[in-house]
Amino acid sequence: MYEVEIRQGDRLEKHPVSEGQNLFSLLKEKGFFMDSPCGGKGICGKCKVKIIRGESTRKGHLRDELGHLPFAERDAGIRLSCRVRITEDLVVELPEASQRDAAIMTDGNYDVVLNPVVSKQYIELSKPTVEDQTSDVERIEKRLGLSGKLHPDIMRDIPDILRANDFKVTATLFEQNIISVEGGDTSEKKYGLAVDLGTTTMVGFLMDLNTGRQIDVYSAINPQRQYGADVITRSDYTVENRDGLDTLSSLVREEINNMLAGFYKKHGIDAQNLYHITVVGNTIMMHLFAGLPVKNIAVSPFIPVTARRIDLDPLKLGIDMCPTGRVTLLPMVAGYVGADTVAAIMASGMAERDELALLIDIGTNGEIALGNRDGIMACSTAAGPAFEGANIRYGMGGISGAISRVWINDDGIQYATIGGQPARGICGSGIVDVVAQMLRAGILEPTGRMITREEAETTLPPALAERICELDGKPALLMASRQQGALDDIYICQKDVREVQLAKAAIAAGVEILLKEMGVSVDDVGHVYLAGGFGNYIDFDHAADIGLIPEQLRTRIVPIGNGAGAGARMALLSREHMDGAQVIRDGIRYIELSAHIEFQNAFVEFMMF
Amino acid sequence: MYEVEIRQGDRLEKHPVSEGQNLFSLLKEKGFFMDSPCGGKGICGKCKVKIIRGESTRKGHLRDELGHLPFAERDAGIRLSCRVRITEDLVVELPEASQRDAAIMTDGNYDVVLNPVVSKQYIELSKPTVEDQTSDVERIEKRLGLSGKLHPDIMRDIPDILRANDFKVTATLFEQNIISVEGGDTSEKKYGLAVDLGTTTMVGFLMDLNTGRQIDVYSAINPQRQYGADVITRSDYTVENRDGLDTLSSLVREEINNMLAGFYKKHGIDAQNLYHITVVGNTIMMHLFAGLPVKNIAVSPFIPVTARRIDLDPLKLGIDMCPTGRVTLLPMVAGYVGADTVAAIMASGMAERDELALLIDIGTNGEIALGNRDGIMACSTAAGPAFEGANIRYGMGGISGAISRVWINDDGIQYATIGGQPARGICGSGIVDVVAQMLRAGILEPTGRMITREEAETTLPPALAERICELDGKPALLMASRQQGALDDIYICQKDVREVQLAKAAIAAGVEILLKEMGVSVDDVGHVYLAGGFGNYIDFDHAADIGLIPEQLRTRIVPIGNGAGAGARMALLSREHMDGAQVIRDGIRYIELSAHIEFQNAFVEFMMF
Repeated sequence: MYEVEIRQGDRLEKHPVSEGQNLFSLLKEKGFFMDSPCGGKGICGKCKVKIIRGESTRKGHLRDELGHLPFAERDAGIRLSCRVRITEDLVVELPEASQRDAAIMTDGNYDVVLNPVVSKQYIELSKPTVEDQTSDVERIEKRLGLSGKLHPDIMRDIPDILRANDFKVTATLFEQNIISVEGGDTSEKKYGLAVDLGTTTMVGFLMDLNTGRQIDVYSAINPQRQYGADVITRSDYTVENRDGLDTLSSLVREEINNMLAGFYKKHGIDAQNLYHITVVGNTIMMHLFAGLPVKNIAVSPFIPVTARRIDLDPLKLGIDMCPTGRVTLLPMVAGYVGADTVAAIMASGMAERDELALLIDIGTNGEIALGNRDGIMACSTAAGPAFEGANIRYGMGGISGAISRVWINDDGIQYATIGGQPARGICGSGIVDVVAQMLRAGILEPTGRMITREEAETTLPPALAERICELDGKPALLMASRQQGALDDIYICQKDVREVQLAKAAIAAGVEILLKEMGVSVDDVGHVYLAGGFGNYIDFDHAADIGLIPEQLRTRIVPIGNGAGAGARMALLSREHMDGAQVIRDGIRYIELSAHIEFQNAFVEFMMF
Repeated sequence: MYEVEIRQGDRLEKHPVSEGQNLFSLLKEKGFFMDSPCGGKGICGKCKVKIIRGESTRKGHLRDELGHLPFAERDAGIRLSCRVRITEDLVVELPEASQRDAAIMTDGNYDVVLNPVVSKQYIELSKPTVEDQTSDVERIEKRLGLSGKLHPDIMRDIPDILRANDFKVTATLFEQNIISVEGGDTSEKKYGLAVDLGTTTMVGFLMDLNTGRQIDVYSAINPQRQYGADVITRSDYTVENRDGLDTLSSLVREEINNMLAGFYKKHGIDAQNLYHITVVGNTIMMHLFAGLPVKNIAVSPFIPVTARRIDLDPLKLGIDMCPTGRVTLLPMVAGYVGADTVAAIMASGMAERDELALLIDIGTNGEIALGNRDGIMACSTAAGPAFEGANIRYGMGGISGAISRVWINDDGIQYATIGGQPARGICGSGIVDVVAQMLRAGILEPTGRMITREEAETTLPPALAERICELDGKPALLMASRQQGALDDIYICQKDVREVQLAKAAIAAGVEILLKEMGVSVDDVGHVYLAGGFGNYIDFDHAADIGLIPEQLRTRIVPIGNGAGAGARMALLSREHMDGAQVIRDGIRYIELSAHIEFQNAFVEFMMF
């Protein structure tokens, strides 16, 4: 039995608990209010507590907590209560109820003081008389101190709204513009959507702009995928087909409408009360969404139509929301460093700190950023989608049945799959694992050459040697077999290894160039933020083993999860971050690697394991 | 023979001329450049010269010159050369050629330093390279120093326009917003339209915003007329018919499109190069144009939806022009004092002077303004459309065949018609004439009662007495007969006189109330500006005789022609006037006569002639 002391404001209680009890359950049981939309599954990141005493608990963060906890919080002993098994006496401090109400919100991997660009204001107006014939529109504008700022499109309905509601109405402001006037007090009905528009997947976060709470999240396959898995194929489609741009643009807008329709129905929200959407994504995805041509991004010198923030008209986009609201595309850096990278930089906080930090977002391309509050350099490497499972013989995305963990020892090969399902293929983290372990076991030479079965029989234990076979005339390693319960015989072949070599060399060379350009060494880098789902699941040691991340930074890696989505939500919830995104992007110096004289040298150099 | 000395800059010539020669013809004959789109007909007001010597010529302004010459110019001896018959030795000074180029333009009754809200700028951009990957949009914005100001709707075509034109383009700015980017140097193609949207007639002025020149003018009957001659009937139509508002709104927008289509074709102008439309009109016309409900203007307390300036989207209005341009509705004062009055006040210049002035716009309503630079009061009287010929038995507008001048003496009645055509009816100026002369001749008593034939036979000369007959059981005066060549027998009947009494009483009472409210007497009023076509043709003495205008102001009347149209053009040509219109309107105190305790008293008092 251990004793847990719980403090919240003036309240202090001590409870005896048995070993292994879950802290979140205890708090709930004892009537301490813990906001936890996910119900203690470690997903929402809302059940944060501070461990005041209990040393091993203070430092015992589980991997899936890390994405929810900025460094400062981890150092301060903050943990997600739902991830804490009680194994010692504890003193636990809960945020005060009043603190939670104070519009300071912490959700997932972002910290935001709630202050959205969209605001609402309930006003009771004096009624017009023969002595006060002020027009309806100016009556509202004067009261709000916003002369000339009421949107012409909503003027038509104003007279009836005022008179049907006894001149008591709620005005919605976007920045300093009055975009909506509703009868009565609707100030609490204020919603927004943050969209992370990926090449493969799009994720929508439905946010309550009144509380800052994330109401729901929905992800869908980007329907443009049927026109090409990568951005270049889609770009080609828009060039080769007259209506190609409109086709791709409509697809993704419709998918956002589907997403919204689901949210509206499920949560009983009126489309008129969704006022603002923020969108992040790579530069080509942003262009396709906005209906802007991408053909000049695809070819040197890779020029976007626009890279600054743009506010679009929902009516013209055909998005089903308040028609006078706004769809904000966050700023981009260049043709191949998009708003997703800007958003991830913002979410990482690196642009606000003195510490030099590296941010790596490994997706279809690998975007890399290096810097601190004094300035950031960024580049994009054609890393190839190897770590997303593409171009890998048995590769797949990080979904159910993917091999995500691999252990190789003298007795053979063990693996784990996502969801514990029978293996169907291998995802990015599994690929990193297996290549690192093949190197250690001697199946792979530092040049990237796989040894043959013949060689293996003289150098490897039989349990491993018997797994080396031949595919397309080259050596291959049997990872999983039907006999072992996999859905297929799953191999890693020589070509897969070459893909990994190309990808990791590109990333490593990109990091090298940024370090050189900035005139710093790898030792000056305080932290490495790994953005994207890949970064959350990867084994950092293995990533360092294969040279994906510089050896010296092995211990300084912090996965930040969906940094792009976090940034999009931050901008939606706070005008400081909305403006901050543009400030960050303006402070970024883009390094075009294709034009960089040393990049090819570094690339070749880093090809070796 | 007289001698005319002509000076223009360094040029000085003396010419002998015979008596009666036209000065404009002389100047043209001698090769002095005189810009005169109307060809010397006294319409365009462009052929101004300064008479340095020649006293009777300096002061000999003809009536049709006055509208073109602000007071200061008249005092300085400025005349329209086409209106000068040479009857003495003259020294004449012409504006220097360079002065004419210096964007100072004088057209009709307004003076404007050309500085339109719309501007164009030709720029030659550096081409993007791998070293300079600035996006297309930001490349343009940076060059213009207008970050974030390029309209999202035009972004899509920017890449092709830049590349097809070697990155040499012309940007169009509306205020500080980039609304268009065209290939090559198109800076001279910059057009606008000023619209005076009357209840009965709409006039469009096609303006070259590059030179300030009026290219063309077109007037049309307001097609809403089929739904009612007056604003209240049209308002009722929008209330009683579900789509009534849209119907009336579409009609007038379509008529503007017709007007534009004609202009585009006739002058070879591309719709894309017409960037701005200014619209003035009474408050109900402005609302109907914008598609805003008018039902609350029609009933007490007469509240407009909006009375401030609004900038509308041509695309949403369906107006065929540059879709990212603007349609600006100039500010209004109240439900019955519209943008036309604000524009006329601006055109009169009264809001800029120390002198106290009165402005009277007699149309369907009579709008009256009194004030100076320190502030203006305005009111609207239900003058009734008598002076537009409505509600007058044989009344008609001021068009061909209308009796516009009447002389009554012992020998009978003479009249003149517009265009010298056979008489078809009588227009406003004719009505004022005939009533004034009926009073003088004793056909009308000061109470407004017409004498009977019987009475006439004892008091009037036979030539007049025989013209008194009876219509609907009341006396009537035969103005014109078929025998005399008129198209019809045309009478003034007792009811017509009553209409004139009501109308003039309303105006006179309105003037009285404004004077009282401002605490001034009629003697403090320096000038009376008569706006509208009516004011241009009326006989001022007769207007004073019937009490339409206070007796003391008889000699201080200045007709300013279409003041509303002039103001609309001023705002189109100059951002100072565009802003000035709002300043003027903000400085106007509206007096609601229907709520005014003394108005009814004054109204009854002024009913008598």
